[in-house]
Amino acid sequence: MVGGGQLARMTHQAAIALGQSLRVLSVSPDDSAALVAADVRIGTHTDLAALREFAKGCDAVTFDHEHVPTAHIAALAAEGVKIYPGADTIVYAQDKQRMRERLSELGAPVPRWRPVAEAGEIAGFAAEAGGWPVVAKAVRGGYDGRGVWMLADAAAAEELVRTGTPLIVEERVPLVRELAALVARSPFGQVAAYPVVETVQRDGICVEVLAPAPGLPEERALEAQQLAIDLANALGVVGLLAVELFETADGLVVNELAMRPHNSGHWTIEGARTSQFEQHLRAVLDYPMGETSLAAPAVVMANVLGGPDGGMSIDEHLHHLFAADPGVRVHLYGKQVRPGRKIGHVTVLGDDMTSVRARAARAARRLQEGE
Amino acid sequence: MVGGGQLARMTHQAAIALGQSLRVLSVSPDDSAALVAADVRIGTHTDLAALREFAKGCDAVTFDHEHVPTAHIAALAAEGVKIYPGADTIVYAQDKQRMRERLSELGAPVPRWRPVAEAGEIAGFAAEAGGWPVVAKAVRGGYDGRGVWMLADAAAAEELVRTGTPLIVEERVPLVRELAALVARSPFGQVAAYPVVETVQRDGICVEVLAPAPGLPEERALEAQQLAIDLANALGVVGLLAVELFETADGLVVNELAMRPHNSGHWTIEGARTSQFEQHLRAVLDYPMGETSLAAPAVVMANVLGGPDGGMSIDEHLHHLFAADPGVRVHLYGKQVRPGRKIGHVTVLGDDMTSVRARAARAARRLQEGE
Repeated sequence: MVGGGQLARMTHQAAIALGQSLRVLSVSPDDSAALVAADVRIGTHTDLAALREFAKGCDAVTFDHEHVPTAHIAALAAEGVKIYPGADTIVYAQDKQRMRERLSELGAPVPRWRPVAEAGEIAGFAAEAGGWPVVAKAVRGGYDGRGVWMLADAAAAEELVRTGTPLIVEERVPLVRELAALVARSPFGQVAAYPVVETVQRDGICVEVLAPAPGLPEERALEAQQLAIDLANALGVVGLLAVELFETADGLVVNELAMRPHNSGHWTIEGARTSQFEQHLRAVLDYPMGETSLAAPAVVMANVLGGPDGGMSIDEHLHHLFAADPGVRVHLYGKQVRPGRKIGHVTVLGDDMTSVRARAARAARRLQEGE
Repeated sequence: MVGGGQLARMTHQAAIALGQSLRVLSVSPDDSAALVAADVRIGTHTDLAALREFAKGCDAVTFDHEHVPTAHIAALAAEGVKIYPGADTIVYAQDKQRMRERLSELGAPVPRWRPVAEAGEIAGFAAEAGGWPVVAKAVRGGYDGRGVWMLADAAAAEELVRTGTPLIVEERVPLVRELAALVARSPFGQVAAYPVVETVQRDGICVEVLAPAPGLPEERALEAQQLAIDLANALGVVGLLAVELFETADGLVVNELAMRPHNSGHWTIEGARTSQFEQHLRAVLDYPMGETSLAAPAVVMANVLGGPDGGMSIDEHLHHLFAADPGVRVHLYGKQVRPGRKIGHVTVLGDDMTSVRARAARAARRLQEGE
């Protein structure tokens, strides 16, 4: 796995169960996965020579993030490396303009959008799309709320354009809530779909995932799953595809695509019969897909973020949490605490979504802030 | 963790979730845990200098097996190393004679037994204990059916005694079935008990574990749990204690003790809210214990043993298994296949014990023998 973050860390846990060991290409020996994997190579994902050396002897190569240049991926594939998802596929998770174009071609539901180079174009789009505010997105490189701007007026648009960031602009979708549909697809073409979840964001960062999405009508859940399956097939995804969706009064709208284990799927470690991490490995290693059914009627994952002071003793907080709620499942990523940084997550399973959600939120708060 | 077998391998998976990384003292770099852990030291558990070097900088030291000399454990403890279970405790899992003596003192239910040095003593015991056959056990070093002999007559006793192995002899208990009671105890003295399971043996090797033990009356389950809790307290166990039990028409009898993650607890990885591996870590790191409740009404673990030809392609068999039953959980240990060697296990969760057991047995057979 290229990239040594928490996704690679948790993928390593899944690899161990399959009798495998994950080789990790990590920028630093202190990265989450580098701290726990047996076979760590230090190198940069933008360095083709490092990637080539890394890939030698791997059964398959896949990614913890979407920042590997597609030219490098294509070069390795041409040399016979089994590398998934391929360059022609992952580009739609790297480049929001290409993604919007392709989804529009495929007839998938997307917001009104436009590539823009000048502030005047943004103002023009705003005038057509129902007025300010509009949403500007960096074509490349955004994550966790970075690279997304809510523009209130022409002045804000002007300021953003001056940074020189390549942008697209989108209408602000009047959303009821956000959902995510996670599927995995093997090279053989088998696709498995997880139950559709609700994702709860704060400041652009996912803080909670509710599985299954509470009160989602079955036909809408099926529609979301079918949409994700169709996109996985159309884009030729191998591995996981997470489709981030807006639920609106008028139906579903695709927000973003990710092609790797995804924060919206962390609940599957305990909450589904097959975790997304194992599923991703099964896909890229061309094994048959695993069962995706829920392990409990209600599953909630809550992210644990570094507190504003950054000075918490996670170990002490963990003691308090374990004493207070012995049934919470904890995943810590071995990261230095920084304000707002995802340093772990908790998962709670139960029968009733309201109480499960309250327990998960309390547990995350306890890890962040102590008692 | 001293020892690099599958127990350390699975403990590493649990350590990762807790934000830790397991350091492993492994005899060989090919050992199960050495293949997947980030911090592996090669050395022998009987070498005090290696143990001392290994322990430097560890928060706590514990064991994947019971073969570390108690003198070494005591020496490290005297030097300030947090090492669990301690020498005065683990001796009861190392030395069957000491274990039987101590259990007899504590009034725990044990078979009639006697230390023996001569064949005549075995014959004398057999005469007193209801006749042949009787069970002879090596005082030290037995596991997975090794070090246990069913003696049919005086000639067999004579032959065994001639090997010079220090022995105890026990009556053959007329058992209904075998059970196991697993508890974990922290240095603080908190004890958590798992549901009592049935263990199914073949040729002295555990092949299946049924959780909870089917049809076990609640009062007998509570009795087994209480017995394990009492023993953990009386022996000062820190970490896991597995009490292997015979269920007889007249009640429970203690067969063996183990003080580490145990094969009878592998089902807890998916089948209980807290896995035995995390629980062991929580105990030796002095965290509060985790919830032990079942994740499904019926959970079955089946061991996967190397087939007689030793030539199976585990990878091909895994493909078949995943295609045939996408809901089976698989754990492979990264071991070379040898006849009868435990190379992995499978776990199935469900509502009905009969069908869950059949699925688990079929899955283990598929991994062992293919279609």
